Amino acid sequence: LDATLRLFAGKGFQAATMRDIAAEAGCSLGLAYRYFARKEDLVLALYERLARELEEEVAALPPAPLAERFERALRADLGRIAPYRHAFAALFGVAMTPGSDVAVLGERVAHVRARVRNVFLSVVTGATDAPRPRQADDLATVLYAAHLGVVLFWLQDTSPNQRATDDLLVFARDLMSRFRPALRLPPVAKSLARLAVIIGPMFGGRAAVVSPDNETPAG
Amino acid sequence: LDATLRLFAGKGFQAATMRDIAAEAGCSLGLAYRYFARKEDLVLALYERLARELEEEVAALPPAPLAERFERALRADLGRIAPYRHAFAALFGVAMTPGSDVAVLGERVAHVRARVRNVFLSVVTGATDAPRPRQADDLATVLYAAHLGVVLFWLQDTSPNQRATDDLLVFARDLMSRFRPALRLPPVAKSLARLAVIIGPMFGGRAAVVSPDNETPAG
Repeated sequence: LDATLRLFAGKGFQAATMRDIAAEAGCSLGLAYRYFARKEDLVLALYERLARELEEEVAALPPAPLAERFERALRADLGRIAPYRHAFAALFGVAMTPGSDVAVLGERVAHVRARVRNVFLSVVTGATDAPRPRQADDLATVLYAAHLGVVLFWLQDTSPNQRATDDLLVFARDLMSRFRPALRLPPVAKSLARLAVIIGPMFGGRAAVVSPDNETPAG
Repeated sequence: LDATLRLFAGKGFQAATMRDIAAEAGCSLGLAYRYFARKEDLVLALYERLARELEEEVAALPPAPLAERFERALRADLGRIAPYRHAFAALFGVAMTPGSDVAVLGERVAHVRARVRNVFLSVVTGATDAPRPRQADDLATVLYAAHLGVVLFWLQDTSPNQRATDDLLVFARDLMSRFRPALRLPPVAKSLARLAVIIGPMFGGRAAVVSPDNETPAG
């Protein structure tokens, strides 16, 4: 998988072949094919590794306010993939192309998304100021989407050492910390629930079976 | 440009050649090259056309509350590009690859971004509940970023007739409408200004020259 990432960084996803990847990994093409029938399978294995590593990082987070846990989870994630930033940028095009076999939001990656969404659920439920379960579920969906947004921002961030992303994380933490009490207000709780229903199907959340008008504000 | 879009929808950006595009447009390859030296120049011309069309649509919007104007601007934009949704999805990978010549957030497209950001400034300043100029500027940057987020969501939206995107637009309008008065509250105004400073350089806003601590809350 490391060899794959190095090649994507150097040649881009389209140009890298299984032969290149085997050579870079120092194994025979036959051996590479024994584990991965196609380049796309390597990318799926990569997604699974990223999900597992994020699971481990979040499991190791101490109890803390939600704003702090979310920031720490994102910093752990970005810090870990930072050495491969150019590789992910190269992979990004195909990862975000709808209908591609390795589309991050496509069918074949649905199980990985469900898994990562659960990681964000445990970011929320492990917080010292965790809301009640139903709202925790809504928050997990929205924070997962926010996480993808931050990763996109980071991939596009050309400021020195991606300082803008750093500022964005501090901003998000301060905002969450300041507005956390507002989640108890019915209009805010309702808005959050409604947003989770809308984006849930895309981000591996529960299906949109309830209409927003039937939502009970949680808090 | 229409021929280019049809080809991207059919073959994808990478596979489409200038020869294909000329054939699809019913002109000679020589004529195509007279106007566009490379496929990438066609994409830049396409971005410019999209910006011009959005300018025209927003100029035609009647005065109305900001929430409504923002929703109408986004609906006009998505409605216009909807017939080319698959073409944009095919172009999306390269458009979002940092360092590509046609990177939406890259150097070569900076003038188009500045132009589109100005469109969102006029969405704000033409509103019946427009905030004062400094805050209008911050809002324009954040709404431009939100617009790109909605377009990304729409490209990935596999719900029937992109109904989830429709729900998201109604949600955004209701949210803006409900929370518009909160922009007068100093902590909210300060958060908005701070966010605009962080994301401004990426989205064609003014440079980040002021520290958030020196911001005067606007309202």
